[in-house]
Amino acid sequence: MKARVHITLKPGVHDPQSKAIASALKGLGFGGFDDVRQGKYIEIDLADSDRASAERIVKEMCAKFLANPVIENYRVDIDAT
Amino acid sequence: MKARVHITLKPGVHDPQSKAIASALKGLGFGGFDDVRQGKYIEIDLADSDRASAERIVKEMCAKFLANPVIENYRVDIDAT
Repeated sequence: MKARVHITLKPGVHDPQSKAIASALKGLGFGGFDDVRQGKYIEIDLADSDRASAERIVKEMCAKFLANPVIENYRVDIDAT
Repeated sequence: MKARVHITLKPGVHDPQSKAIASALKGLGFGGFDDVRQGKYIEIDLADSDRASAERIVKEMCAKFLANPVIENYRVDIDAT
């Protein structure tokens, strides 16, 4: 069972890395986009075969360590494969 | 239209950050997982309303700038919303 975790900065939090990516893309001649947001992506291979318990554990990992809940949002998707 | 880009290190590429995350999780008492892989996640809000052309542009952004194709894989998902 695989957990996919997306961690992004909360809206309103200053995000210079995203601004740098947007500005570099424009500098390279790419237009046609309004906004860029960057974040972290973490894949965890879980031994647990129970979906609900896996989700609970990964959310606890996020709240305690993987994300900073003050400035970051996280999303946990559990994949059966 | 929103593009979601996942950039991960290719299998076999030395990935100390993932090892550090796994080791810290174990240190915090989290068990029950086999492997952790970390990567980057980028969301791009596109003005383009044509799915195929949006995908082509974002893939070009990845190949030219967002990812390092020598050591990284990237996946582009286009969302209609």
